[in-house]
Amino acid sequence: MLESSNLVTFTGLANSSGYDTFLMDEERGRLLVGAEDHVLSFDLVNINRDVKQIAWPATPSKRDECKWAGKDLRKDCSNFVRVLQPYNQTHIYICGTGAFHPICAYLEMGKRAEENIFRLDPNYFENGRGKSPYDPKMQSSSLLIDGELYSGTSADFMGRDFAIYRTLGSQHPIRTEQHDSRWLNEPRFLGIHLIPESDNPEDDKIFLFFKENAMDGEHSGKATISRIGQLCKNDMGGHRSLVNKWTTFLKARLTCSVPGLNGIDTHFDELQDVFLMSAKDPKNPVIYAVFTTSSNIFRGSAICMYSMADIRRGWAKLPMGSLPEQSAIPPSWHNLPDDVITFARLHPAMYNPVQPMGGKPIVVRTNVEYQFTQLVVDRVEAEDGQYDVMFIGTDLGTVLKVVTIPRESWHDLEEVVLEEMTVFREPTPITAMELSTKQQQLYLGSDLGISQMPLHRCEVYGKACAECCLA
Amino acid sequence: MLESSNLVTFTGLANSSGYDTFLMDEERGRLLVGAEDHVLSFDLVNINRDVKQIAWPATPSKRDECKWAGKDLRKDCSNFVRVLQPYNQTHIYICGTGAFHPICAYLEMGKRAEENIFRLDPNYFENGRGKSPYDPKMQSSSLLIDGELYSGTSADFMGRDFAIYRTLGSQHPIRTEQHDSRWLNEPRFLGIHLIPESDNPEDDKIFLFFKENAMDGEHSGKATISRIGQLCKNDMGGHRSLVNKWTTFLKARLTCSVPGLNGIDTHFDELQDVFLMSAKDPKNPVIYAVFTTSSNIFRGSAICMYSMADIRRGWAKLPMGSLPEQSAIPPSWHNLPDDVITFARLHPAMYNPVQPMGGKPIVVRTNVEYQFTQLVVDRVEAEDGQYDVMFIGTDLGTVLKVVTIPRESWHDLEEVVLEEMTVFREPTPITAMELSTKQQQLYLGSDLGISQMPLHRCEVYGKACAECCLA
Repeated sequence: MLESSNLVTFTGLANSSGYDTFLMDEERGRLLVGAEDHVLSFDLVNINRDVKQIAWPATPSKRDECKWAGKDLRKDCSNFVRVLQPYNQTHIYICGTGAFHPICAYLEMGKRAEENIFRLDPNYFENGRGKSPYDPKMQSSSLLIDGELYSGTSADFMGRDFAIYRTLGSQHPIRTEQHDSRWLNEPRFLGIHLIPESDNPEDDKIFLFFKENAMDGEHSGKATISRIGQLCKNDMGGHRSLVNKWTTFLKARLTCSVPGLNGIDTHFDELQDVFLMSAKDPKNPVIYAVFTTSSNIFRGSAICMYSMADIRRGWAKLPMGSLPEQSAIPPSWHNLPDDVITFARLHPAMYNPVQPMGGKPIVVRTNVEYQFTQLVVDRVEAEDGQYDVMFIGTDLGTVLKVVTIPRESWHDLEEVVLEEMTVFREPTPITAMELSTKQQQLYLGSDLGISQMPLHRCEVYGKACAECCLA
Repeated sequence: MLESSNLVTFTGLANSSGYDTFLMDEERGRLLVGAEDHVLSFDLVNINRDVKQIAWPATPSKRDECKWAGKDLRKDCSNFVRVLQPYNQTHIYICGTGAFHPICAYLEMGKRAEENIFRLDPNYFENGRGKSPYDPKMQSSSLLIDGELYSGTSADFMGRDFAIYRTLGSQHPIRTEQHDSRWLNEPRFLGIHLIPESDNPEDDKIFLFFKENAMDGEHSGKATISRIGQLCKNDMGGHRSLVNKWTTFLKARLTCSVPGLNGIDTHFDELQDVFLMSAKDPKNPVIYAVFTTSSNIFRGSAICMYSMADIRRGWAKLPMGSLPEQSAIPPSWHNLPDDVITFARLHPAMYNPVQPMGGKPIVVRTNVEYQFTQLVVDRVEAEDGQYDVMFIGTDLGTVLKVVTIPRESWHDLEEVVLEEMTVFREPTPITAMELSTKQQQLYLGSDLGISQMPLHRCEVYGKACAECCLA
């Protein structure tokens, strides 16, 4: 394990924690970080230079209410920033848990970096229900696009009303069916992305990555299942019973398993993170996903790759159960008869799971002390072609730098660990990770603070090797 | 690891293998062993003294048929002895695979050991269909009681017609429903036992221990599930569609899992062996069961204990699905209306699994090279009370001697490995295990031969410790 000499660490503020909501702003050269009671802005070149911070605590009265409601004052009753999304050319939309009372605001940044503006607009505070979770422990995700905010979160104090919301914008908010475990069964959201379906923006789709509890089967008992969900961006909600409810929501299992000789696969069911590697064709990014096992006896991690072609093939088939006179669900259900809508509403889960490329993980790690938590991927041009270099964060505050190299074919990859680096003083889970291709730097978040490291550190291997090394 | 000095090994015959069908005959002081093309009789005092053997190969014509049918002549087309059960005071019932053509015979032993008789009765050879499997790789079990043979096996050449049969005796054979995966879904049988239900022999029940493929659920994919099944000994078969079919067959899942902090349990699903520890009350033996994991990535073994009270509580409840006007299925269904019989026939699986005593395994072994295969238990009186000493066979030809000692309560057991012994020259799975409490010896079978070792070997620790040791 290398102790990195060119690692830059920002030690967390005395009265804050949870540096895990990142927004990369390459244009202004800043990394925005949402944390407990604070939002911070770092210089991408050096995170210890020109740090800006805004304190945004919950009000004393909200903290008192939170405490009286039986929550842990120290752990739960702060304002944990959970949404940090670009709103327009000058403003960022920002939401926090607000001591179990979600709140949103507009963060003014100015048009250009030189304006040096970084302040919360004091005139617009909004209710954050359906945008940020109440409970900071709840795993939520959000994406703001064309003035509309998509959020996978829970929308009540008790943390029982899970939903995928679309808020802001000029239309009425739309959400998933309330308290229907077939739609969402205690979901934990890991990511939301827009992926175009064609050259027409009207066909754009929103993809959600989450895990949820499996519906009880004979074999199961309690189990986690990982999911990819989709929505059409142009979904306006339905008629009658589906007013202000999504009409295009579908979900499929995201499988990451190692085939067994006996036909029984070993599943990695706990989705931890998702990274989209953009391709020349914006319709077809490669999806990298990090998984761990659900068991606390057998601990392991895996990374699987998925293609959009495989994902789209799944949606073309029937949802679970079956709809007699319908061989495929059209993308827009707006003009479908009521019984079709009703059927689809009761059966959002697709029968066929999405299988990873090559049918198995590209990286599997077992019998080690750590588990994977985060992933970013850097595409590198080398002399003999293109490599995807994976930076994998762990729950012990380390980063693995891994490439997979085809042995004979794409179905037989060899995994090569280039480096293993400790990036925080103490072992602490890495909870956020972003890379700047412009700066060629990697940024890491944890409870203890932020760290920054160069993507390539060939110079540590001496001048002779520097030119050819992948490190 | 100790190399045992007082280990006695019978090296297998040159033209045989598979020494895994054991019958302990304490009265005559013999261990009978069924193997490939042979049945052997060993002296319990020393298995290398006075070995008797009978060659019982498949006929050349049956071997040719087997080969022509595409089977492996060397591995499959012998007569592997799979049934060895006491028939009456003078005879043992014996069946073998007969080169994919099961065959049974009567082994004459004489009334007493001194008669020194050991021969196959040349006048009675019987078709072994429904008694021994065709395929020697099929895991089957049998129990002969009151002149009736209960067998869990497959009853066709293709190995698709799985069934629990009752044959011999004066009645028409009875079996499970044919080709109905709700009854049996590619079962592998590990043991059959009679356990009295009351003081009235009419209430006696037959318990079957097996594993089978789980029915497909949303979460599952292919999976193995371990089972306890029960039949009433006095079951005469049903009427109409159930003529010559069991009317009392029920099965429940046998769970052996470690509770997880997140509510997700780690299951050991591959039942390997079962040992019944008899108690003063013959109605309530303690059931010890050995399990391994299904995964080839995460390999582990566990031992769970079950009480008959917990098992009986399960049967009192409803089978899966539900029968509206019926709160419990009575033990004898003979006089029930047709629709009740029909319902029960379609739903032999109980909804509630049988949980182990204490809710978790008493032994768990992970991150080791070996897996458990076999188990026998010896109850030992020590100064401070009774201990159950477990002898655990592994797939690497070793035996672990383990006791569990209550730490604070019966729910918190500490496992203590007393010894770990290599009992075969080469690493080979231990496939059979019997103990003689009279001789205080343990007998082990494998592909390579038979080994014998004393249950307690205190003398290896020197005279001073011998008196107090558990070894």
